[in-house]
Amino acid sequence: MPYINIQVTREGTAPGRSAITEEEKAALIAGASQLMLDVLDKPLESTFVVIDEVPTENWGWGGLPALEFRRRRAAGKP
Amino acid sequence: MPYINIQVTREGTAPGRSAITEEEKAALIAGASQLMLDVLDKPLESTFVVIDEVPTENWGWGGLPALEFRRRRAAGKP
Amino acid sequence: MPYINIQVTREGTAPGRSAITEEEKAALIAGASQLMLDVLDKPLESTFVVIDEVPTENWGWGGLPALEFRRRRAAGKP
Amino acid sequence: MPYINIQVTREGTAPGRSAITEEEKAALIAGASQLMLDVLDKPLESTFVVIDEVPTENWGWGGLPALEFRRRRAAGKP
Amino acid sequence: MPYINIQVTREGTAPGRSAITEEEKAALIAGASQLMLDVLDKPLESTFVVIDEVPTENWGWGGLPALEFRRRRAAGKP
Amino acid sequence: MPYINIQVTREGTAPGRSAITEEEKAALIAGASQLMLDVLDKPLESTFVVIDEVPTENWGWGGLPALEFRRRRAAGKP
Repeated sequence: MPYINIQVTREGTAPGRSAITEEEKAALIAGASQLMLDVLDKPLESTFVVIDEVPTENWGWGGLPALEFRRRRAAGKP
Repeated sequence: MPYINIQVTREGTAPGRSAITEEEKAALIAGASQLMLDVLDKPLESTFVVIDEVPTENWGWGGLPALEFRRRRAAGKP
Repeated sequence: MPYINIQVTREGTAPGRSAITEEEKAALIAGASQLMLDVLDKPLESTFVVIDEVPTENWGWGGLPALEFRRRRAAGKP
Repeated sequence: MPYINIQVTREGTAPGRSAITEEEKAALIAGASQLMLDVLDKPLESTFVVIDEVPTENWGWGGLPALEFRRRRAAGKP
Repeated sequence: MPYINIQVTREGTAPGRSAITEEEKAALIAGASQLMLDVLDKPLESTFVVIDEVPTENWGWGGLPALEFRRRRAAGKP
Repeated sequence: MPYINIQVTREGTAPGRSAITEEEKAALIAGASQLMLDVLDKPLESTFVVIDEVPTENWGWGGLPALEFRRRRAAGKP
């Protein structure tokens, strides 16, 4: 009976993509479910996985919106 | 002071509907709040209910995206 | 495939009790699951319910810890 | 390592706005992160903030959808 | 910046254990973080994993407390 | 109607303390509620704050349990 909630920013993993693909979502679902089976012997049919995609401006890190945090870190600014 | 979070797949309950209706949402809110009052004597005014609608490809069960899991189960495949 | 998370303060509903009873938890589970069946036709076997019990000092309302908020409201203080 | 999830209804704070602005989101992120630093000495770089915007019909209070609850309260109805 | 919340019942995976072990928790953390790296190329240092252990009587499935649901399913009862 | 969930590791902020104090919890509740009022004009009485304290071995960062991640970072290990 595991429930796994995966929260990620709504971004693509390759140029031209604005969000994760259905294949990537299926891979996350399969991987997370398999992890429960491998580590805790929880059957796949007893595991829920829910993926939340969060707009980048709704995600904060370092006190900043995510993209601004990344820009500063890339520019070596604390 | 209960907080109830209801997560469901973004699907309609009747042909032609792609999501739950406002009436259904109001019924979920009323039912969940009433449940807190009936079981734990929590006043309605002290209960929050939040409904999250999750795209079907973002919900996994049995290691598969929800719709694929349903197809296989309907076809009798483990 | 509904997932319902019920968060309540860790308090009893009768004198001498410091938390909700197993019977009350079973009633919350049954009621929440039945609500999904009644409103959205979701089978009971596809519904997870998770109850979180939160220490009262970890729950805030009105900018105050829950019990302090209640004391002030009972005393008619804004 | 704090993780802060802020759930608000998807509404604007001024006429003509249907949701909170990017500036308001940045202020929530900055304020919540600073709060962790001020109270618990958690560095900004170790704090995640995630803002969920919930459609008003998906938020219940007093057993009613949020806007209906507000209407009744404004009209002095219990 | 993924945030992964893993909710499992507070049970051991072997006789005599009443909860998952620290090694199992570390394996869940490592596996979930690696999954984000493998599928979405998210660096390990940008991933939070939080494991919630839920008392079995606080987890419902099939409208029943988890252990009761398991007993009935094992006994072939619907 | 904001709902704010603050998740922190169960640790004290000073030697000899194994968890955050009631005063610190009250400060988090007050600060988070005030933030909603300041930024989004949400009345204090319409804001819930829930603080979850997570055992350190249940929190992962960088693919490691929190304390191990800190040790390695303090020792300059990637």
